[in-house]
Amino acid sequence: MTDLSHAPRYVQIEHALRRRIARASAGDALPSESELCREFGASRMTVRAAMARLVDEGLVHRQAGRGSFVAEAPPARRADLLVGFGAEMRRQGRVPGSREVAVRLRRAAEEEAHRLRLGREASVVSVRRVRVADGVPIAWEHAVFPGALSGLAETDLVHGSLHEALVKLGFVPTAGRSWITAAVADEERARVLEVPPGSALLVEERVIDDQDGTPLEFTRSAYAADRYRLSVGFHVDRPGSGRAPA
Amino acid sequence: MTDLSHAPRYVQIEHALRRRIARASAGDALPSESELCREFGASRMTVRAAMARLVDEGLVHRQAGRGSFVAEAPPARRADLLVGFGAEMRRQGRVPGSREVAVRLRRAAEEEAHRLRLGREASVVSVRRVRVADGVPIAWEHAVFPGALSGLAETDLVHGSLHEALVKLGFVPTAGRSWITAAVADEERARVLEVPPGSALLVEERVIDDQDGTPLEFTRSAYAADRYRLSVGFHVDRPGSGRAPA
Repeated sequence: MTDLSHAPRYVQIEHALRRRIARASAGDALPSESELCREFGASRMTVRAAMARLVDEGLVHRQAGRGSFVAEAPPARRADLLVGFGAEMRRQGRVPGSREVAVRLRRAAEEEAHRLRLGREASVVSVRRVRVADGVPIAWEHAVFPGALSGLAETDLVHGSLHEALVKLGFVPTAGRSWITAAVADEERARVLEVPPGSALLVEERVIDDQDGTPLEFTRSAYAADRYRLSVGFHVDRPGSGRAPA
Repeated sequence: MTDLSHAPRYVQIEHALRRRIARASAGDALPSESELCREFGASRMTVRAAMARLVDEGLVHRQAGRGSFVAEAPPARRADLLVGFGAEMRRQGRVPGSREVAVRLRRAAEEEAHRLRLGREASVVSVRRVRVADGVPIAWEHAVFPGALSGLAETDLVHGSLHEALVKLGFVPTAGRSWITAAVADEERARVLEVPPGSALLVEERVIDDQDGTPLEFTRSAYAADRYRLSVGFHVDRPGSGRAPA
């Protein structure tokens, strides 16, 4: 957990509320300002400061005369920037982590070899993890890397960042392309994500290239749809302004 | 339907195969080259030319010694460009259309007023459509526009383009932001999309601004996940290179 013992009181309260919201359902009522003042032994000004950023970020929805509620939609990550799960969760003020980590060096499956532009007999490092934020499972993730990066297996994948480990090995994740679709949770995904089987999953496949344009990583992430969203800025497609993706 | 009677033979065959693929399931085998030559009364070169673009686009997956198969994933639309459904389908060589069109002028719901930056008592034009490609339902779509655009109700929304109609009214869709999530099909969505209830839907919400940066359209689209994908190019998030979305 992030050490907040020296942080201002409103930041501590904000983090406590974030953890509560992460475990709540959309539309759940939050305690009133007076109740929060009593609960945290804080002034009304401090409680308001704690709530302000949650409202700004769209995590909390205020209804005049009715109170504050957990917003319908979870915060969104920009899909057009390469941001790791951990960095994104920290940006949202949440503590990222991983569970059920499984690392294997094995032969590439056909699609993996194709996406990483490897030969048929090539080996890959396969990393499966369940990504959590403040202890709540958010995503099931399966990443594969060229076998030459077997040094990744030495990384602390529960607490550490794969992208930081890649940079230490001399490979800088630089750009890429994602494909976004949806799926429903099978028994196994439902179990690890702690959602009912048949729940909606947002599925993101990413191929990330290094600083030389060589494929470095092929990752498939399945996010619990009510805990994660993607966001994209777009502009009008004038002729010649962009090529269709492969 | 697109009139292809004067198109080269290979284009006619390509379109016939596209319609077949749109109705097939991922992994279904396609006829062999010899079978296609017999079926269409065409040379092997013509059949190969017809297949080439389908393979390039990722609609068809070739396996050496085994034949050709309907690819696992549908073609993807770039989420970072503003392309209408109709234009995207035509780019893929498919014939777009709409079904079950319902247009209403009514009071804005709270979220609609918020997204379009309208007052509480404002009216909106609501347009619901089921979008089809080559007769196959792809998306359920609900678009709302400021009530001042009531002229939209005069548009031929079965065959015509809403975006072209907006331009004629003097409002040019220029840029915007989308939020992407997933859902499962309820009975009504399943019926109109011709998928089993509980199927995965890719859900895209878009706010589109006009040439002056004024919100012009708020649209929620639910795509049958096995018939539609989104794709996004991304680059590394260097500090200061981008702001977090609202």
